Amino acid sequence: MEFNLDLSIDVLRRTPAVLVALLDGLAEPWIRGTEGPDTFSPFDVVGHLIDGEETDWIPRARIILARSPNPAFEPYDRFRHRGRNAGRTLGSLLGEFARLRAANLEVLRGWHLTEAELDLPGAHPALGRVSLRQLLAAWVVHDLGHLAQVARVMAKLYRAEVGPWVPYLPGLTEYEVPRS
Amino acid sequence: MEFNLDLSIDVLRRTPAVLVALLDGLAEPWIRGTEGPDTFSPFDVVGHLIDGEETDWIPRARIILARSPNPAFEPYDRFRHRGRNAGRTLGSLLGEFARLRAANLEVLRGWHLTEAELDLPGAHPALGRVSLRQLLAAWVVHDLGHLAQVARVMAKLYRAEVGPWVPYLPGLTEYEVPRS
Repeated sequence: MEFNLDLSIDVLRRTPAVLVALLDGLAEPWIRGTEGPDTFSPFDVVGHLIDGEETDWIPRARIILARSPNPAFEPYDRFRHRGRNAGRTLGSLLGEFARLRAANLEVLRGWHLTEAELDLPGAHPALGRVSLRQLLAAWVVHDLGHLAQVARVMAKLYRAEVGPWVPYLPGLTEYEVPRS
Repeated sequence: MEFNLDLSIDVLRRTPAVLVALLDGLAEPWIRGTEGPDTFSPFDVVGHLIDGEETDWIPRARIILARSPNPAFEPYDRFRHRGRNAGRTLGSLLGEFARLRAANLEVLRGWHLTEAELDLPGAHPALGRVSLRQLLAAWVVHDLGHLAQVARVMAKLYRAEVGPWVPYLPGLTEYEVPRS
């Protein structure tokens, strides 16, 4: 499937509502479970997605669109949310994520990006040259990967409870090495 | 996390709304993509979940609760949905799944299951003896595994579009061998 800006935005705009449907009001054991040390709970994932809205995707797109001779991205802190959100409720984080995402998509739509602009380069601190098109595709894939992660982390919390069903439930067996 | 009936129902009741938020009205390329031959698209997953409502979870729970000397489950056809749903729209399948799930959860709630009833056995055609508790836990894990699958299948459709980002996006790299 080739990159398409409208089809990308139609996935990005859905993520807050998907997370609300899956998580808002759910009991703490589901929300706070993880796959092990240094991996994300569903609560952590929402905080991590907020970090992306504030420090990653649109800020990096702005750097690209500024067309400076050195369009270097700021490094991204994958654990910024841990300190930032201590004491917050999941409900308030879900609301904040929805507001930030909606505002960022308004910015993105307002740019009316051309194919030539989607080809403009940025400089990723580790990956090197990336295009604006690749940045926006990565935003979509990043969302979907973390949605999959939330569902998988929750599934694994019931691993011992399904008894003999484990080999029939791929969510339990195909991600033996978790990543946050 | 130990099995808890109320906490299980609170996940099961959310799945239709999660799928609506993620998929309803989305363009065909997102809905019809797969990970390869004999794997499920997001459309297929919704059909597969409908099959579960009609032929798997509650029908098997009824067999267990009937306390017959041979509480054998009917084999489950994982590809029943392919013929059943040819020509259907995703929107109509999402509505059907929501209605079936709501009705099945009403049945489940109405049983007011005791711990002793949750321990009652059924006979799985391949796995052997399973308890009602394990069946219900597997229902939850099955839902979550397929939610993760939908997000992962969609993510992989953009694999070529993210360029150098592939190694940073676990959804693309950690499920190299897909299962339907």
